[in-house]
Amino acid sequence: MTDTRFTITTFDWVPEFPRGFVRDLRARWALEEAGLDYTVESVPFHNRQPAHFSQQAFGQVPWLREGDITLFESGAMLLHIGEQSDTLLPTAPAERAEVIQWLFAALNSVEMASLPWFILRFTDGEESAPERARILDFLKARLRHMEAVLADREWLADSFSIADIAMADVLRLVDRLDGLDESPHCRRYVEQASSRPAFKKAHADQLAHFAQND
Amino acid sequence: MTDTRFTITTFDWVPEFPRGFVRDLRARWALEEAGLDYTVESVPFHNRQPAHFSQQAFGQVPWLREGDITLFESGAMLLHIGEQSDTLLPTAPAERAEVIQWLFAALNSVEMASLPWFILRFTDGEESAPERARILDFLKARLRHMEAVLADREWLADSFSIADIAMADVLRLVDRLDGLDESPHCRRYVEQASSRPAFKKAHADQLAHFAQND
Repeated sequence: MTDTRFTITTFDWVPEFPRGFVRDLRARWALEEAGLDYTVESVPFHNRQPAHFSQQAFGQVPWLREGDITLFESGAMLLHIGEQSDTLLPTAPAERAEVIQWLFAALNSVEMASLPWFILRFTDGEESAPERARILDFLKARLRHMEAVLADREWLADSFSIADIAMADVLRLVDRLDGLDESPHCRRYVEQASSRPAFKKAHADQLAHFAQND
Repeated sequence: MTDTRFTITTFDWVPEFPRGFVRDLRARWALEEAGLDYTVESVPFHNRQPAHFSQQAFGQVPWLREGDITLFESGAMLLHIGEQSDTLLPTAPAERAEVIQWLFAALNSVEMASLPWFILRFTDGEESAPERARILDFLKARLRHMEAVLADREWLADSFSIADIAMADVLRLVDRLDGLDESPHCRRYVEQASSRPAFKKAHADQLAHFAQND
């Protein structure tokens, strides 16, 4: 396996709860969609070492290696994989720009609101805390705009792209905590994306990977 | 001015407080650094119209136009400008990947923590609310890692790049609310970035733009 073109590094193990949602899924999914060959390596979840931080400055996962290129951040990894795929990132400048715009929108406009909401769902406190309401409003506003975007299109750009991998994965985490109850178009979009064979394989592989070290 | 290559669209006016921090600054700064010709157009801050949402799905600013390419998201705009600059984004694959990784890190790892913190600073509530503490911890962890990253380097990659425009602008907002008091390397980095002539021009131009319609 050492001559495999791409290597994804993720944790050797994570607790039950995040399984199926660890961000190596985004890279696995993109590589499956692109039909590119890859292998998966592990770093310890417990006792993260300096060597880990030298690859991923925040002590998280995943990172991607291809030859002498190593990069972290799921968005950067998706862009890198997209550039080597025939289908996930168009080469025509206007179409390419549209996909990249939506890739950033998934991460910097939608996940920017959904991740703090997710974190606060697991923070003790008063249900009526104004901080909680404020972050929920932030997320709701973004979902309302995404409802309008997704109402009349199948995918964010003309065809399925790296932007959909990012956006569907971001919205999938919201859906997990019933955050899409008032966002039927977002929910339909998540279902449609996660019914793709490449997603199913990536998802099953991640679950199997973490179960190995139980 | 109609034959200018790039057009940035921003609001015609914003209240005092966000001036100097509206995200068109990132695009202005990059275009100034790259020495690329651009013009700035406005859309109404009040009563945002469907035509606005058709350009920026979340009703925000900025967006960038170059010929038949239009894109929103400051990260996507920085990448687009970087690809047309001789200095802001290297072309060698490993160096390019490093810059893109840090561009995403600025937006999806650091701003993801700093923006909710910023929002909660302007939300009424108890100083001791656990939600507030949780989001502050999230930011502090990211800053601690950025301290380690910035301790021994001038810029995120080998030379000043689009990643520094994003990261410095993200950290600059934290610094504004004294969030860098325990992060001297981050603060030094912000000072160094914002002393660049291209930043100063972009910043002054943004302030002048919004003051026009007072």
